[in-house]
Amino acid sequence: MPNSFGKLFTITTWGESHGAAVGVVIDGCPAGLAITADEIQVELDRRRPGQSDIVTPRKEEDRVEILAGVFEGKTMGTPISLLVRNADQRPGAYDEMREKFRPSHADFTYQAKYGLRDHRGGGRSSARETIGRVAAGAIAAKILRLANGVETRAFVTQVHDISAPLEALAKFPTLAEVEATAVRCPHPATAAAMIERIKAVRSEGDSVGGVIECRVRGLPAGLGEPVFDRLEADLAKAMLSLPATKGFEIGSGFSGTRLKGSEHNDAFETRDGRVRTVTNRSGGVQGGISNGEELVFRVAFKPTATILQPQKTVDIRGAATELAARGRHDPCVLPRAVPIVEAMTSLVLLDHWMRQHAQNQTFKF
Amino acid sequence: MPNSFGKLFTITTWGESHGAAVGVVIDGCPAGLAITADEIQVELDRRRPGQSDIVTPRKEEDRVEILAGVFEGKTMGTPISLLVRNADQRPGAYDEMREKFRPSHADFTYQAKYGLRDHRGGGRSSARETIGRVAAGAIAAKILRLANGVETRAFVTQVHDISAPLEALAKFPTLAEVEATAVRCPHPATAAAMIERIKAVRSEGDSVGGVIECRVRGLPAGLGEPVFDRLEADLAKAMLSLPATKGFEIGSGFSGTRLKGSEHNDAFETRDGRVRTVTNRSGGVQGGISNGEELVFRVAFKPTATILQPQKTVDIRGAATELAARGRHDPCVLPRAVPIVEAMTSLVLLDHWMRQHAQNQTFKF
Amino acid sequence: MPNSFGKLFTITTWGESHGAAVGVVIDGCPAGLAITADEIQVELDRRRPGQSDIVTPRKEEDRVEILAGVFEGKTMGTPISLLVRNADQRPGAYDEMREKFRPSHADFTYQAKYGLRDHRGGGRSSARETIGRVAAGAIAAKILRLANGVETRAFVTQVHDISAPLEALAKFPTLAEVEATAVRCPHPATAAAMIERIKAVRSEGDSVGGVIECRVRGLPAGLGEPVFDRLEADLAKAMLSLPATKGFEIGSGFSGTRLKGSEHNDAFETRDGRVRTVTNRSGGVQGGISNGEELVFRVAFKPTATILQPQKTVDIRGAATELAARGRHDPCVLPRAVPIVEAMTSLVLLDHWMRQHAQNQTFKF
Amino acid sequence: MPNSFGKLFTITTWGESHGAAVGVVIDGCPAGLAITADEIQVELDRRRPGQSDIVTPRKEEDRVEILAGVFEGKTMGTPISLLVRNADQRPGAYDEMREKFRPSHADFTYQAKYGLRDHRGGGRSSARETIGRVAAGAIAAKILRLANGVETRAFVTQVHDISAPLEALAKFPTLAEVEATAVRCPHPATAAAMIERIKAVRSEGDSVGGVIECRVRGLPAGLGEPVFDRLEADLAKAMLSLPATKGFEIGSGFSGTRLKGSEHNDAFETRDGRVRTVTNRSGGVQGGISNGEELVFRVAFKPTATILQPQKTVDIRGAATELAARGRHDPCVLPRAVPIVEAMTSLVLLDHWMRQHAQNQTFKF
Repeated sequence: MPNSFGKLFTITTWGESHGAAVGVVIDGCPAGLAITADEIQVELDRRRPGQSDIVTPRKEEDRVEILAGVFEGKTMGTPISLLVRNADQRPGAYDEMREKFRPSHADFTYQAKYGLRDHRGGGRSSARETIGRVAAGAIAAKILRLANGVETRAFVTQVHDISAPLEALAKFPTLAEVEATAVRCPHPATAAAMIERIKAVRSEGDSVGGVIECRVRGLPAGLGEPVFDRLEADLAKAMLSLPATKGFEIGSGFSGTRLKGSEHNDAFETRDGRVRTVTNRSGGVQGGISNGEELVFRVAFKPTATILQPQKTVDIRGAATELAARGRHDPCVLPRAVPIVEAMTSLVLLDHWMRQHAQNQTFKF
Repeated sequence: MPNSFGKLFTITTWGESHGAAVGVVIDGCPAGLAITADEIQVELDRRRPGQSDIVTPRKEEDRVEILAGVFEGKTMGTPISLLVRNADQRPGAYDEMREKFRPSHADFTYQAKYGLRDHRGGGRSSARETIGRVAAGAIAAKILRLANGVETRAFVTQVHDISAPLEALAKFPTLAEVEATAVRCPHPATAAAMIERIKAVRSEGDSVGGVIECRVRGLPAGLGEPVFDRLEADLAKAMLSLPATKGFEIGSGFSGTRLKGSEHNDAFETRDGRVRTVTNRSGGVQGGISNGEELVFRVAFKPTATILQPQKTVDIRGAATELAARGRHDPCVLPRAVPIVEAMTSLVLLDHWMRQHAQNQTFKF
Repeated sequence: MPNSFGKLFTITTWGESHGAAVGVVIDGCPAGLAITADEIQVELDRRRPGQSDIVTPRKEEDRVEILAGVFEGKTMGTPISLLVRNADQRPGAYDEMREKFRPSHADFTYQAKYGLRDHRGGGRSSARETIGRVAAGAIAAKILRLANGVETRAFVTQVHDISAPLEALAKFPTLAEVEATAVRCPHPATAAAMIERIKAVRSEGDSVGGVIECRVRGLPAGLGEPVFDRLEADLAKAMLSLPATKGFEIGSGFSGTRLKGSEHNDAFETRDGRVRTVTNRSGGVQGGISNGEELVFRVAFKPTATILQPQKTVDIRGAATELAARGRHDPCVLPRAVPIVEAMTSLVLLDHWMRQHAQNQTFKF
Repeated sequence: MPNSFGKLFTITTWGESHGAAVGVVIDGCPAGLAITADEIQVELDRRRPGQSDIVTPRKEEDRVEILAGVFEGKTMGTPISLLVRNADQRPGAYDEMREKFRPSHADFTYQAKYGLRDHRGGGRSSARETIGRVAAGAIAAKILRLANGVETRAFVTQVHDISAPLEALAKFPTLAEVEATAVRCPHPATAAAMIERIKAVRSEGDSVGGVIECRVRGLPAGLGEPVFDRLEADLAKAMLSLPATKGFEIGSGFSGTRLKGSEHNDAFETRDGRVRTVTNRSGGVQGGISNGEELVFRVAFKPTATILQPQKTVDIRGAATELAARGRHDPCVLPRAVPIVEAMTSLVLLDHWMRQHAQNQTFKF
């Protein structure tokens, strides 16, 4: 089921960018949770087009409808079906793509795999697919919050070659700090520079990428299933399943490879009455299982493939040609990707929470 | 099934480090493949202890037995059961770990999750678990080779702060080049420096990490299942499911985040009669689907957690204490991790190969 | 994923009886299949209310909409999302059920499991859930027909104590013969008696059950996956997952238990140039794998639980009370269940077809 | 994973009849359960050959070894690997089957599916495969017993045309009553007649089938996952995945199709302080979910396919020939199938128990 994610809290997304609608079916949501379309909408509004002057100006409201699974305001344990109608479509803008492959897009690979494709706006490979993920993630996040006060916070730490200073990221940012700027970097000076850079590349018809960091606090020790379903393995899969991602690292990540063991190991101590680590180079996970420290990981996003400059490519017959995108695109996907990273994180964590309870907390021998 | 991996070519590993044996059951292997224990042994010998003077000197032969699924030299389509007996165990060496948590190991998290654990050598969290992966990967690799000449090559590109020069990695290394040195870096001068460094840190009772790169050639366009089972997502999960890994990146990875779209995009051209990309910053995958270019990704390994220097920690009652490992450990896991990375890659690719055929090549409308 | 069925051709159904809509997401449908809403509608019309004078007179058109997965008339390999709006709802008719458990319905068990329920028309336990199955089954059936001329035919062989004579079922009935009568029994004299009986029990406010037989021809030898995913095991699960079913038997079934081995075994012979069995007590399956003979199985349906006579029950507080259904119900579910049995059969067979190709026909060693 | 069963408590069986060994890997077993090889052996002894004078006289001890997953007498939450060596093999006895297909066995279908097969004793299609199921079932049964006092009891109710009288089955039989006779029918007079019949057909070189009933008490209301993973659907799949089974029915089953709704419905009442049904035609399940009443179902087994009389068949080239089995076979599989039916029942129930806890008892909103 390539369009499904999660073992116990399972989502199945569907829909093409320029079809009638996109949506998600959530299977396995616990019964009795109070949830409204408005609560879900809050997260969708964080990812929708047109929310600021550094994202695509497309005018899509992305209003979510709950079609099933909720009765008199509460989940019933039955599948939750959510739908968002597509709007503000200008399919004519894509006529050229019927014949030509956009560089570093999925046009060629979809054609190679399936023998045909919906060329309008990338069809299924469009980031509109992530609407269902964000909607489902909003529900998962609420459950985690109610169950244990789990709090997930993603934010932009790098855009192009502009990075937030390490000391600025020393503490867990508040939601307000993240939402304070359009670029969702909680360090105001860095955010200002990032915004300026995004506007500059946009004016050149170009694009930039960057890095999102995600942290989770309130997670108990014990989540994650060795050996293949390690918590970091499932997070890595979740993140690399997002459009435009090229890398994932947890804790010390790639830079930790330059330390010695004696510098890298996290010593244990007893603090606040429980076993804690003095440092957190592990990023909250050891042996694939959460250790009760803050979960910390980072995701690399490439520069947006759609640029307004003319590019060399081939058409579906293989003949050399040229292509220039027009119109309304994100010069940098990171600001809108922040709620998507959070959503995928919540989906992974809730699924593992339920698995941990099923196997290890249900039976007391 | 946390101990299983793969949807159509599925492996299930079992076994603790100091139990009677470790093993793997392979479900879904095509029938009719000629395979012998000796062919599997070749790969196990590349990961076994004691193979060189920079890895652990433990004396385990790791001889594989085929218990089921092969008849008169051929696979039958039934589950293949492989077993390797554990040997050269000195469980007494672990008595101290019954009471103390080793820093940056899985001792504490297993205890937190399950309420008990096998303290001898890490039990299930030991890298001995990967024996089953390597054995199964040897079979998957043979099928891929027979089916399309697919060739997978992993090698060490960085140890501590020593990296192979980029130009040294311009071409696909031969197996002989990789196997020429104990550290499995195909650039001889770099390999010599790496070996020297590993010996130096070992003499200090310390350890180092590094980076393994993996490349695959011969892969057709069309492998990978959007949207969640993208090829890079499944590779990321496979790699982060390995002990000691902290990061994964494909193609341009984290460094690609510093390019502009106009610099990063891979232009298409027709070459050798088929659609090719001029550059390969995508790393062989676009939209989650292979594009027929070389697959290129990298994996970050932290320094070995086991070091011979005394470290601060707590015991199972939370009291502060100190711990120093003794004996026989890998000062750097990367040389032995090379065949493991290759094995996981083959497992992911064969699984996607079978999925691609089931859905998209079985029916011609 | 309790609301999903199938490993490679996977359906996920959603929706409550009196919610906004019911629907299905199909994941894994091969690309390139020409399909229209009208083709799907044909099968939905065979299961919809109001189609004859022996089924419920509810007026629901059950018009299917294709929301995703089909572009310019062809499937794209992406998820197909189908939706049917609910209509002609009289939720007020169910006010009494908010407080009372209907005997032999799922009211009590849903309440026990989830702690709450949608009391209107059974909510998720309603047979309206099968709309998605029938819609998906129509697509699966078309693929099987195109791939190998596979033909699936279900029909009613018993209603209450009226059974079609064995000799009447000697041959594979045509679709026209099945559709000739409202009860979908291909033996006209028996059909007439069944219809009379159904009308008689309806006039008493009572209900009846019966047996549906299903046969499949055109199936090659080799479908079915030992040991757990035997073809008959997956068919049994599919049938017992339908509302109101109480039994499943394949080939000789329960009556075959009264034969000796020498009477029951199906001798092999070569006929029409291929290996065939002389008899077919196996029902087309041996060792869990199709043998190329006609697939033959039967499904037992209990009498409709909803009857218009007053029945003793308890309310949600456990107090004794009485309940009498009103209104518009099927006095016998079998006529409308015929296309549902066919749909589930097609879903099982296509899934196994794809699995057989992935594992055993993709690689030729 | 066709050789795996269960979603949270998952077993994977492996091994051919005349290979080195058969075994099972159990993934998802809760940690902390005290279990010994001897406890598992008790159930294996109930299914092993040579246990009485009405089963095959083969001399296999079927001693189970625990290779992994248990440490110092307790499960660790890691995979449990169990192995039974094959013994008393007379592979020469099967030379003829290399060339000839045994009627109503899986020889032809395995050959058709895989293109080759292990002809010795049926290879993977042999009932020896069920050893792993019984071993795993013993563990599952212990957990269910400890968790809620759940008790599962299967027994033979029919052999050939000899059935136990209904009144004899009115109460839940004790284990001692079932084990009192070699045929495992708790009604002594019927058991004597069954044993006589089995000996009579054996002396003719023939075989017989029959029916096993299985009951479970102590099960709470709420187990079972609508809509596809209904409890009866998963039980039906489990039973039809056993060799030689041809039918499954729950509660009133096929005979219930001859009742009217007013006769068939189970009225609710409050009894012993909880909601109960007056009758139990539902067999303990309504809407796919357990209702707290006794679970009651029946399984049809065909007569053993192996008979000592000569039978017409074809060889692997399709030429007509004749075949007569020699030697040591069960003239009736039912006595040895009783612990197998119980094992599969425990596996289904424990899996659903864990699923119910994960989704519906973990979170209290």
